[in-house]
Amino acid sequence: MPKPNRDPVEHLVSLLARLPGMGRRSARRAALRMLTQPEKLLLPLAEALRDAADTVRACARCGNLDSRSPCGICADPSRDHGLLCVVEGVADVWALERAHAHGGGYHVLGGTLSALGGTAPEDLAIAQLLVRVAEGGVREVILALPATVDGASTAHFLADRLQPTGVAITRPAQGVPMGGTLDGLDDGTLAAALKARR
Amino acid sequence: MPKPNRDPVEHLVSLLARLPGMGRRSARRAALRMLTQPEKLLLPLAEALRDAADTVRACARCGNLDSRSPCGICADPSRDHGLLCVVEGVADVWALERAHAHGGGYHVLGGTLSALGGTAPEDLAIAQLLVRVAEGGVREVILALPATVDGASTAHFLADRLQPTGVAITRPAQGVPMGGTLDGLDDGTLAAALKARR
Repeated sequence: MPKPNRDPVEHLVSLLARLPGMGRRSARRAALRMLTQPEKLLLPLAEALRDAADTVRACARCGNLDSRSPCGICADPSRDHGLLCVVEGVADVWALERAHAHGGGYHVLGGTLSALGGTAPEDLAIAQLLVRVAEGGVREVILALPATVDGASTAHFLADRLQPTGVAITRPAQGVPMGGTLDGLDDGTLAAALKARR
Repeated sequence: MPKPNRDPVEHLVSLLARLPGMGRRSARRAALRMLTQPEKLLLPLAEALRDAADTVRACARCGNLDSRSPCGICADPSRDHGLLCVVEGVADVWALERAHAHGGGYHVLGGTLSALGGTAPEDLAIAQLLVRVAEGGVREVILALPATVDGASTAHFLADRLQPTGVAITRPAQGVPMGGTLDGLDDGTLAAALKARR
């Protein structure tokens, strides 16, 4: 197929505008900044993208994105792999790692079950999770799924499937966020926070 | 120099975070979106950047960025090249072209004079502008510079230099922006808009 004779600047702006948080206006500003600093921004970014495309893959074990498979987390012997944290996506792994909130392993589902969105159990890495737990060595599964209807029903579904394995099943506590005022919280969170008072 | 053994994802996030309007958080989200859609986003973007780096240059005549030099605007015989619009940067060319506000040629200064910022006349494409006007064929120069102190003093400096050539020197009208309320306008704009009433 011959390459269409498109304007390279327009084409670049169109692609940048598809990134989350980027509108057409900010895409134009970003393209301009890159084009005026080719050595400092344009070429290094082109190389970094190519590099990432060549090396970064989903970890065959947990689904995390890394340049190695098994990923750095799965391969780290200093982590407690008996403690498995199930998350919706890779962004959650990154968030928990930044917070140093979890010292065990992960399992990325790749979404949540959704009747409306048409996401069924076989669309997610649920079978792989059950295999990992059945292989032994896992003593606790933390279901760190979003506090949404879909997240809750996915956690419920997973708890149901994991029950026969005898593994401990936990969820992160719900409550008042650090620095948050009671005033600004929704009713559900408030009620849950009071109920789980210590 | 051997390539440092850096994490390709972290490196990509660092570069993206340098784009205007991107913080570290949005850079992470953008990187993740790209990595999860390599065929649709990561690889096309890598190619578009490489393509832009290879083909896009500043037009030798007007300073606009284009894959041709002279650029598409300079080379367009249907435009009125006797009418020359002087702007601070390429972003202004794009804005005026989007608005179909100008049917003539452009001259990109590459900044404005600034005593504080240390920008002197020889740092800008001022000599090139004077050469273009001296070559003849230009009957009017529009000084479409920012309505800031530096923009105004640059316009003043240019008007002074262009005066001996006998070319007409104009500036865009100042006034109430389309859709703008008088209430929200600064005093300077309000005063200018009333003074220039028609």
